Amino acid sequence: MKRKLKMGMVGGGRGAFIGAVHRMAANLDGQMELVAGAFSADPEKSRLSGEDFYLDPARVYGSYAEMAEKEAALPEGERIDFVSIVVRNNLHFEVAKTFLEAGFHVICDKPMTRTLEEATELQSIVRKTGRIFALTHNYTGYPMVKEARDWVASGKLGRIIKVVAEYPQGYAIGGVTGGEAKISNWRADPDVAGISNCMGDIGTHAFNLACYITGLKLDSLCSDLSTFIKGAALDDDGNCLLRFDNGAKGVLYASQISNGDENNLNIRVYGTKASLEWHQEYPNDLVLKAADQPRQVHRRGNGYLGEAAQKFTRTPFGHPEAFIEAFANVYLEAGRAIRDAIEGKTDGGPYDFPTVDDGVDGVRFIHKVVESSRAQAWIPFA
Amino acid sequence: MKRKLKMGMVGGGRGAFIGAVHRMAANLDGQMELVAGAFSADPEKSRLSGEDFYLDPARVYGSYAEMAEKEAALPEGERIDFVSIVVRNNLHFEVAKTFLEAGFHVICDKPMTRTLEEATELQSIVRKTGRIFALTHNYTGYPMVKEARDWVASGKLGRIIKVVAEYPQGYAIGGVTGGEAKISNWRADPDVAGISNCMGDIGTHAFNLACYITGLKLDSLCSDLSTFIKGAALDDDGNCLLRFDNGAKGVLYASQISNGDENNLNIRVYGTKASLEWHQEYPNDLVLKAADQPRQVHRRGNGYLGEAAQKFTRTPFGHPEAFIEAFANVYLEAGRAIRDAIEGKTDGGPYDFPTVDDGVDGVRFIHKVVESSRAQAWIPFA
Amino acid sequence: MKRKLKMGMVGGGRGAFIGAVHRMAANLDGQMELVAGAFSADPEKSRLSGEDFYLDPARVYGSYAEMAEKEAALPEGERIDFVSIVVRNNLHFEVAKTFLEAGFHVICDKPMTRTLEEATELQSIVRKTGRIFALTHNYTGYPMVKEARDWVASGKLGRIIKVVAEYPQGYAIGGVTGGEAKISNWRADPDVAGISNCMGDIGTHAFNLACYITGLKLDSLCSDLSTFIKGAALDDDGNCLLRFDNGAKGVLYASQISNGDENNLNIRVYGTKASLEWHQEYPNDLVLKAADQPRQVHRRGNGYLGEAAQKFTRTPFGHPEAFIEAFANVYLEAGRAIRDAIEGKTDGGPYDFPTVDDGVDGVRFIHKVVESSRAQAWIPFA
Amino acid sequence: MKRKLKMGMVGGGRGAFIGAVHRMAANLDGQMELVAGAFSADPEKSRLSGEDFYLDPARVYGSYAEMAEKEAALPEGERIDFVSIVVRNNLHFEVAKTFLEAGFHVICDKPMTRTLEEATELQSIVRKTGRIFALTHNYTGYPMVKEARDWVASGKLGRIIKVVAEYPQGYAIGGVTGGEAKISNWRADPDVAGISNCMGDIGTHAFNLACYITGLKLDSLCSDLSTFIKGAALDDDGNCLLRFDNGAKGVLYASQISNGDENNLNIRVYGTKASLEWHQEYPNDLVLKAADQPRQVHRRGNGYLGEAAQKFTRTPFGHPEAFIEAFANVYLEAGRAIRDAIEGKTDGGPYDFPTVDDGVDGVRFIHKVVESSRAQAWIPFA
Repeated sequence: MKRKLKMGMVGGGRGAFIGAVHRMAANLDGQMELVAGAFSADPEKSRLSGEDFYLDPARVYGSYAEMAEKEAALPEGERIDFVSIVVRNNLHFEVAKTFLEAGFHVICDKPMTRTLEEATELQSIVRKTGRIFALTHNYTGYPMVKEARDWVASGKLGRIIKVVAEYPQGYAIGGVTGGEAKISNWRADPDVAGISNCMGDIGTHAFNLACYITGLKLDSLCSDLSTFIKGAALDDDGNCLLRFDNGAKGVLYASQISNGDENNLNIRVYGTKASLEWHQEYPNDLVLKAADQPRQVHRRGNGYLGEAAQKFTRTPFGHPEAFIEAFANVYLEAGRAIRDAIEGKTDGGPYDFPTVDDGVDGVRFIHKVVESSRAQAWIPFA
Repeated sequence: MKRKLKMGMVGGGRGAFIGAVHRMAANLDGQMELVAGAFSADPEKSRLSGEDFYLDPARVYGSYAEMAEKEAALPEGERIDFVSIVVRNNLHFEVAKTFLEAGFHVICDKPMTRTLEEATELQSIVRKTGRIFALTHNYTGYPMVKEARDWVASGKLGRIIKVVAEYPQGYAIGGVTGGEAKISNWRADPDVAGISNCMGDIGTHAFNLACYITGLKLDSLCSDLSTFIKGAALDDDGNCLLRFDNGAKGVLYASQISNGDENNLNIRVYGTKASLEWHQEYPNDLVLKAADQPRQVHRRGNGYLGEAAQKFTRTPFGHPEAFIEAFANVYLEAGRAIRDAIEGKTDGGPYDFPTVDDGVDGVRFIHKVVESSRAQAWIPFA
Repeated sequence: MKRKLKMGMVGGGRGAFIGAVHRMAANLDGQMELVAGAFSADPEKSRLSGEDFYLDPARVYGSYAEMAEKEAALPEGERIDFVSIVVRNNLHFEVAKTFLEAGFHVICDKPMTRTLEEATELQSIVRKTGRIFALTHNYTGYPMVKEARDWVASGKLGRIIKVVAEYPQGYAIGGVTGGEAKISNWRADPDVAGISNCMGDIGTHAFNLACYITGLKLDSLCSDLSTFIKGAALDDDGNCLLRFDNGAKGVLYASQISNGDENNLNIRVYGTKASLEWHQEYPNDLVLKAADQPRQVHRRGNGYLGEAAQKFTRTPFGHPEAFIEAFANVYLEAGRAIRDAIEGKTDGGPYDFPTVDDGVDGVRFIHKVVESSRAQAWIPFA
Repeated sequence: MKRKLKMGMVGGGRGAFIGAVHRMAANLDGQMELVAGAFSADPEKSRLSGEDFYLDPARVYGSYAEMAEKEAALPEGERIDFVSIVVRNNLHFEVAKTFLEAGFHVICDKPMTRTLEEATELQSIVRKTGRIFALTHNYTGYPMVKEARDWVASGKLGRIIKVVAEYPQGYAIGGVTGGEAKISNWRADPDVAGISNCMGDIGTHAFNLACYITGLKLDSLCSDLSTFIKGAALDDDGNCLLRFDNGAKGVLYASQISNGDENNLNIRVYGTKASLEWHQEYPNDLVLKAADQPRQVHRRGNGYLGEAAQKFTRTPFGHPEAFIEAFANVYLEAGRAIRDAIEGKTDGGPYDFPTVDDGVDGVRFIHKVVESSRAQAWIPFA
C-alpha cells in the first residue's frame, strides 16, 4: 500500500485539547493524513475546523452519522481507512458502533464507554466486525513504559509483590474554595462523563498503566472517593488499596485537587529481585533498584534497552521525547495493524496498543472503585 | 547551671545502631556528656562498651535497676541528669518507669511501649512525676519539617484536604525469597517488638510526621498489612487509607520489602491554598506548590525561613545537614527543657520535641492499624 | 492561503538522523507537507527514500540542481514553497544559494557554512533575494528557552554578569581508546565538516543558546581544543573562557568524549537581580534563583509564563514536550514567515527563529575558537 | 590510651562560623574533648566563649602565645594533645608554627597560609617537628568523595581525560549592586586574606577536591579573575582552564556572585572507561556514567561501596549524612594519627586527611591563578 493511511475524526474541533493531540500524534510520522471529519455537533464549527485543517469542504460533515454513511460510499483508497473518536465519554459507544459496523477501523479515546454494559457490547461488536479497535491509553506508548513491561515479563524483577500507582493533578483546586474548578462542565456531569469524574478520567490511566507493566489481574479493592469541589456531583479525588491475584498488594490514587501537582502520573513496581520506578513528567528515565546494588537509571534511546523501547523511539539518547511522541506510538502501532488489515497481512502481530479488552477492564475498574467507596468496604474485582 | 548536662544510657552497647546515633546526637552540640550506662544485659559487654566510651568503670552498671538506684544515690551535679533509653521495645516501659520514679528525666526511643495499656500508664507516670519525657521521633527534628509544620499552622496552605505519607524500606527483601531477612530477631518477635514489626518500627514514624506537620487528628482508617517474609509472625508491609477529623483524606504506607528503597520517608500535604512536599533522604529541601504558581524550593539555612527552622540549624545554606543533626535537635530541645527543669525555670516553653502524648498516639496507631487489617474494614481511630 | 505549505528537502534520505527530525518537525502541526526532494547524491537511494515518504516519483530528483530547476518551473501553488537543507556542512552554501536564487525560501541545518567567507556571502544572498532563511538552532525553539530570553530582556535578572554554557556528549568515547568513535566519517573530515568537529557541531549550539538568551555580544575569548580520538584531524573537546561586551564573564565547553553524557546541553545565566538555569534533557523546567529567596521552578504550560513560552506550547502543563516539539517550533515560526511572504503580509514580524545573521555569528565563533586554541591566547571576537 | 584526646582551640569564639563547625566535628564521635582555648584576640570575648563551652576558666587564655606556653607546662595527659587553628588566614602560619614548635599536633583551617613562602616554611617545620598537621579541606571527608577517589585509583574510570570542578556561591551578590556584600571585612582585605578572596576561600577547595579524587598534578593553567563587587580589592569570581600532567583537560571555576547559588561545589571526572559526578549539596549520591550503560547512582552506606567509604560512615543507607559528618571525618582520622603518635604506634598509616603538602599545593594554586589572570596568559603550574 504505497500511500498514507486516510484518517477521519469525530469531535476535536477548534479549541479541543485532546482532538489536537490526536491530530499531532497522527501527523508526526507521516504515515497517515486527516482527510475527513465531523468535528462538532455544531455544523458551522465543524466547517470552520475543517478549514483549519486544510480539508476538502466536501468531507467535512455535520454529523458523525452522515460521515459514516458518505465515507462508506466512497471507493476504497479514497474513503477514510479509520476514524479517530475524540468526542465526550457518553458518545464513545454509539460513534464507535456506527463506524465499526460501517466497516471502519477505530481509534477511540478513553474511558471507552460510560457504562459497563456498553463496554462489553462494544467488545462484542469489535469481535464480530473484526475491525481494529485501539484505545488511547497513551501512557503505555512511552518507550520506557514498554521497557518496564518487558522487565517484568522477562522476570528481571522476580515475583511482583507491591505496586504503587499515583496520578495527582491539581488543576481543579479552584473549585474547592468556591472559585472556578476548571473541570469542563461535561466531566462533572454524570450524564456525559458517567459515574465518575476523577477515577474515570485519570484513575483509569493509572490502573491501565499498572496492569500493562505488571501483567497482573486485580483480585479485590477497597476505595475511598471524595468530592471536595463544592456542589459537584462526582468524585475529584480517590484513594484505593489493591490486592492482585498473585498476592501482590497495591496502592493507587488519583486526584484533581492535589494543589500544585500538574500531571504527576508515576508508578513503582516492587519485585523480589528488583524494583522499578517511572515518572510521566520525566519520561525518558526509568529507575531500576535492588537491595545491595547501585541504582540504575535507564534512559530512552540507548542500545542497552529492549526491542520495544528501541522500536518506539525516534531520537537518539539525550534528545528527549515526551507526551506527543508516546501518543503517536499508539497511532503508529494501531496504524500498522490497520495497514496490515487492509493489505490482508495476517502475521504482523502481536500489536502493542491498548485494545477493547483493556477498555472493558478500565470501565470495570471505574465501576468497582465507585461501588467499593459507596459500600465503604473491600469488594472483589471480577 | 554552668556545666554540661550529665547523661546516662540504658542499652546501646557495642555495635548497636540506634544507641550510637543517640550518643552522636547528644555529643554534637557540646551541651551534654555521657557519664554512666547500663549498656547491655550482659555485664561484660556493658563493661567493654563503657571502655569504648571512656567512662569511669564505676559508673558502668550491670543492670538498669542497679544504675537507677546507684545514680540516685549520688549527689546532684554528679549523678546523671537524665537517661537515654535505647533498649528493645518490650523494655521501654519498665526502664522508663524505673528512672522516672527515681526522679530522672528521660529520653526514650520509639515505639514508646509494646502495648497501649503500658503507653497510657507511662503517660500517667510522666504526669505524676513531672519529669521531662522526650520520645525520639527524630524526623520531626529536621529544620524543614519544622518549617512545614509552621506553614500549616500559619495558614499558608489553607485548609488541609489530603495527606500522603510514605515510608518504604527494602532492607528485608532477602527474607521474602527465603534468604536472610536482615530484620533483627527481636523486631520479628511479638514478645519483644509488640503486635507489629513494620508499622511499629516505621509506620509510626510516618504517622507521627503527618500529625506533627498537619496538626490533624485521625478520625478513622482502613489498613491492609502483609507478611511477605517467609515464616514471619509480624507484618513487613502495610497500606492504609486515612480520614482526618477535618474531612481531609489520606494515604499512608510503610514497607520493609520495597526492594531497593533505603529509608525513603516522604510526605505530601495538600491544602486549599498550597501544598508541600518533603523527602527525608534529601532533607534540606522543602517544596511549596500551588496551582498557577511556579514551584518554590525552600532550602534550609536561609533567612526567609521561619523561626523554628532557623533555630534548629547549625550550618549556613548549602552546607547540608542531615539525619544526625535532626536527631540532635530532639536532644538539644529536650536538653533545654531538662536544664530549665533543673534550674527551676518555668517560662522556657513551649518545647518542640515529641512527648509521652505523641507516644500514646503512636502506640494507638499501631494497634488500630493491626485491628483494621484483621477486620478487613474501616474502623474509628479514637 | 487555504492550503498547507509545500516543502522540499535536499538530503535526509533513508537512515539519516537529522533529515527524519526535520520531517517530523514539519509534519507535527499539519501546516506543511513534504512534496518533493533530492534525498541523496545516489539517485536510487533518493528514489527509494521518496517511496518511504509516499511522494510522487516525478518529484523525487536525482540532484538538488535538477530539483531547483524543475520545481521553479512548476506553477505557484504546485511547486514547493520552501526547501529544507539537511545535507553535510560543505554543501550547505551551494544548495542554499541555488534555491534562494531560484526564488525559494530556505530552512537550513547548522553550522550554516563551512567557511566564514561562505557565511557572509550567504548573508548577502539572503538580503539580495529577500527570501526567508531560517537556521535550525533548534534549542532556541524550546518554550522555556524563550521564557529565559524574555526574563533577561525584561530585566528580571538585572545586569548579566556571568554565563556558563555546557554541551557535553560522550558518544565518541570509543574512539579515544582505539575503538569505534561513532563520529560519522564526514564530521571528522575537514573537507566536509570544516575546521572543527566538536565546536562546529555542538559548541556552536551552546554559543547560539547563550547569545539568544542573554542578548549579549562576545568581546573576546580564550579556548583550548583537544583531540582525544586517536588519529582524528579535528577537535572532539573544547573549553573556552568568555568575555562579553557588557563586562560579563563566561565559561563555555563542548565535548564528544565526556563518557556517559548524552546530550547534556545546559546553561546558567547569572544576573545582579536573579539567575536562571536550564537543562535540555529536562526541558520543561526553568529555574529562577536569587539570594535570600526560595528557588522557583517555572514549568512549561502554565499561565504565569510569558507570551512566547505560551505561544510555542502544544500541551497543558505536566504533559511534557521535548526535542521534536522544540524543533517543530522553528518550522512553525519559519513557516509563518514564509506564509506571510507568500501572501504579501508585511506586518507579521518580528519572527522568532534563527536567521542568517545568527549563522554568520556561529561560523565566526567556530573560527575564533580554533584560532584562539592554536594561538594559546586570548583573542578578540569581532 | 584509655581517654579522650584533649583539644585546644585558637580562634573560633562566640559567633564564629567555622570555629563552631570544628567543635561539632570534634564532638561528634566522642573521641576528643575541648579543654582549652584562646578564642579571641579580645580576652573578655575569649573568657565568655570559654564559659559557653563549659571550660575551666584557668584554661581559657588571652592569647595563643600564652596558651602554647602554659599548656606545654602542664603534665602529659592533662595538657592538650593538639590544637585546632581557626583564626584568620594571616595568622595561620604563626599560630601553627608556635604550637608545632611547642610540641603540639595541629589541625588547621584553610587556606594554609597567606603566602607561598609561609607555606613552604610551614612544610619544613612540620617535617622537622614530626608533629601531625591536618588541613581541613573538609570536602574530602565525604564518604562518597573517598569512593570517587578509590574509583579513579582502582582504574574503574580508565585514564582520566577531563575534569570539571565548579564552586559557585552567590552570597556576595549584594555587593555587586552597591548593597551589602556579606563578605566579612577580612576576606576582602589583602593584608588578612592574602592575594585572593574567592579563589583563596573556595577555589582552593575545588582544586583540592579535583586533585584528591583524580590524583593528577596540574601542568598549566589559564585563568580569568573578576571583581564585580564595587570597590573591592580582591576577586569574587574566577574561571580557569586547566591542563593536567597526563594530558587531561579541565575547567574550574569559583564564584561568590553567582546569584542564588548556595554552596554548589560539584565535580565531574571523565575517564576512558567511565565517568563520575558528585554534588556537595546532595552528598550521599555518587553517579557513575559510561557510554552504552545505564547510569548508576551509588549511595552512601551500602555494602557495595569500597573500604574507605564504608569506614567513614556513621549511619545506614537512607539515613543521610552531610557537611558536619564529613568535617568530622577529618577530625576522626587526624585524631587517629594523633593518638597513634602519642602511643608511639608507627604502623597506623596511611592516614586519609589533607596534609601540609596539600596546603602548599593549595597556596601555590591561589598564587598561580592570580598570576595567570594578571598576565592574561597560560602559565605553568610548577
